[in-house]
Amino acid sequence: MTERVFNFSAGPAILPEPVLEAARSALWAFEDSGIGILEHSHRGSYFTKVIEETVSNCRKLAGISDDYEILFIQGGASTQFFMAPMNWLSEGKTASYVNTGTWCKKAMKEAKLFGNVHVAASSEDKNFSYIPTNEEIKWQSDSVYAHYTSNNTIVGTQFTALPSAPTGVPLFCDASSDIFSKPIDIGAHGMVYAGAQKNLGPSGMALVIVRKDLVESANEGLPSMLQYRVHAKAGSCFNTPPTFGIYIMGEVFKWILAQGGLDAIAKINEEKAGILYSFLDESAMFSGTTRHDSRSNMNVTFRASSEELEAAFIKEATAAGLPGLKGHRSVGGMRASIYNAFPTNGVTALVDFMKSFEQKNK
Amino acid sequence: MTERVFNFSAGPAILPEPVLEAARSALWAFEDSGIGILEHSHRGSYFTKVIEETVSNCRKLAGISDDYEILFIQGGASTQFFMAPMNWLSEGKTASYVNTGTWCKKAMKEAKLFGNVHVAASSEDKNFSYIPTNEEIKWQSDSVYAHYTSNNTIVGTQFTALPSAPTGVPLFCDASSDIFSKPIDIGAHGMVYAGAQKNLGPSGMALVIVRKDLVESANEGLPSMLQYRVHAKAGSCFNTPPTFGIYIMGEVFKWILAQGGLDAIAKINEEKAGILYSFLDESAMFSGTTRHDSRSNMNVTFRASSEELEAAFIKEATAAGLPGLKGHRSVGGMRASIYNAFPTNGVTALVDFMKSFEQKNK
Repeated sequence: MTERVFNFSAGPAILPEPVLEAARSALWAFEDSGIGILEHSHRGSYFTKVIEETVSNCRKLAGISDDYEILFIQGGASTQFFMAPMNWLSEGKTASYVNTGTWCKKAMKEAKLFGNVHVAASSEDKNFSYIPTNEEIKWQSDSVYAHYTSNNTIVGTQFTALPSAPTGVPLFCDASSDIFSKPIDIGAHGMVYAGAQKNLGPSGMALVIVRKDLVESANEGLPSMLQYRVHAKAGSCFNTPPTFGIYIMGEVFKWILAQGGLDAIAKINEEKAGILYSFLDESAMFSGTTRHDSRSNMNVTFRASSEELEAAFIKEATAAGLPGLKGHRSVGGMRASIYNAFPTNGVTALVDFMKSFEQKNK
Repeated sequence: MTERVFNFSAGPAILPEPVLEAARSALWAFEDSGIGILEHSHRGSYFTKVIEETVSNCRKLAGISDDYEILFIQGGASTQFFMAPMNWLSEGKTASYVNTGTWCKKAMKEAKLFGNVHVAASSEDKNFSYIPTNEEIKWQSDSVYAHYTSNNTIVGTQFTALPSAPTGVPLFCDASSDIFSKPIDIGAHGMVYAGAQKNLGPSGMALVIVRKDLVESANEGLPSMLQYRVHAKAGSCFNTPPTFGIYIMGEVFKWILAQGGLDAIAKINEEKAGILYSFLDESAMFSGTTRHDSRSNMNVTFRASSEELEAAFIKEATAAGLPGLKGHRSVGGMRASIYNAFPTNGVTALVDFMKSFEQKNK
């Protein structure tokens, strides 16, 4: 088989190799069915088992109680940006958002179509280079929900402490880029959603974990596909669900469980990011772009001492088998996305490359 | 590799084996990139080439002019059911629908949330067993669009002639279950959409072919993800698109082109369905359920002389390597879905099995 490179892409992103190996086999013929996983009816016994196991392993992984629905919804996090306010916000009502970057701004833009948006805190004053502390976040106490983005893919920041929403206000989290990279207290949330293409599987869908009472009390009269209650009632099979995405997600859940679960994967992620941040702290050429207490273990953003060096670095790294390091077009610089599936030896390979690049360009 | 069976599933459905073989390889490492197709950034050069080629081959396949956008939208046909009326219908305005079955009824249900729905014709009087003729269809002349379902998966009917909408009223087609199974006059339509999971690829998305002037004149103030103009402007990359689905669709387009294009595939489909219908017309035990002039070349629906025989037939056929023949739960009986990718020798295998079943149960 062709050799694979260390892929630092921010998303769609690297997947665990055992998952890819299983998928290659399933694509031709799934289990003993003689039918490929893409070709199985979503109402047949084989796929029913896949979706049931995926839900059950998701509960197991994050200790999710039966008070929550686990849904697979097409459209990625961008669909959740409008679907959540469409279901719970309305004219005269307010939703609170902590503004920590581009994706949050996009979510707020969609929410404004349905009601008022209160910015509970913002780190835009410093180019989103930090996460506001709990003391700095001023939620509106009668909000229909309180929304935050647990990890900010573009700027490389991550919440380390859970924001505490006012009593009775459900906490909503866009966890697209750090879901299941560490333990998560689902019980403290009304809803946690995540586009799949970073830590979970192929692009085109979102995992939505949502409290059942919220699903029941959501706005009515919406298109069927935009009602959480419709998806919940149908076990995510109101229409033909993204069966391949659900299959891959199920394999990823099994892989995380085999790694020892969320505690174990968190430890590995901490170590991986630590290797890179330690180097950035001591390098004369490279430096991190975020406040130390807000650093992301998923997306490590950094700059070199000049834009010329950055361009050369990205080009040479790609040629050396380290592609995907270019920062988001809106911020420039570099970004190493090192999600769950990214191996530790890929991080040490990057640090070695950075050291030699620095040496060479002194 | 494990042997594959003849899969008669109505959707997700059988895919061409050369496409599956290419996908197995691409899953591990796409072309010379060292990165699997699921893991490629949607903004990187490899995927950009994939999406551009897929659009270009789609145009080539069906002779689609630059007056039309070709979009890949998450959510399947069920999302188009509400997205189309949301974009063009509004209070006081009317959309016309030809009601030829369950999926059309679902589409009309969603449309009613946005404006008036005029039923231009319906075959519900005879359990949707026929397609109304052009003379029977009474469109409302000031409709914002005129909608029909070109093939009805559940009941096994198919339009053989193009419905003629009133002058100035754009014709909309849900072609989910027969797209690219025969030549299609896109220029006669305002929009043609199709959920991918029958003739095009994995479930979770729709192919949308829509006239550019309609995209420009659509309703404003909608969530970004629900505006065709947003997807059009971003080349289907407003958010992370379903990259794997687009890749597979591109491979399917290449495969159809390699078969000789739509004329050639239509001839094969006509022959395949002909083998089965000829047998149904002469069998004493089995009979087709639809009017002869409305028979679908994609979904061949039939009954046996008793429900007991039907249950035994479905069970024994599955055991004999002919799974997926059970009719939709809403209508019972049997259904052989024989889309583009279904091989002719699978149809003859089914007829042979039916003959021997009939002989054995005389």
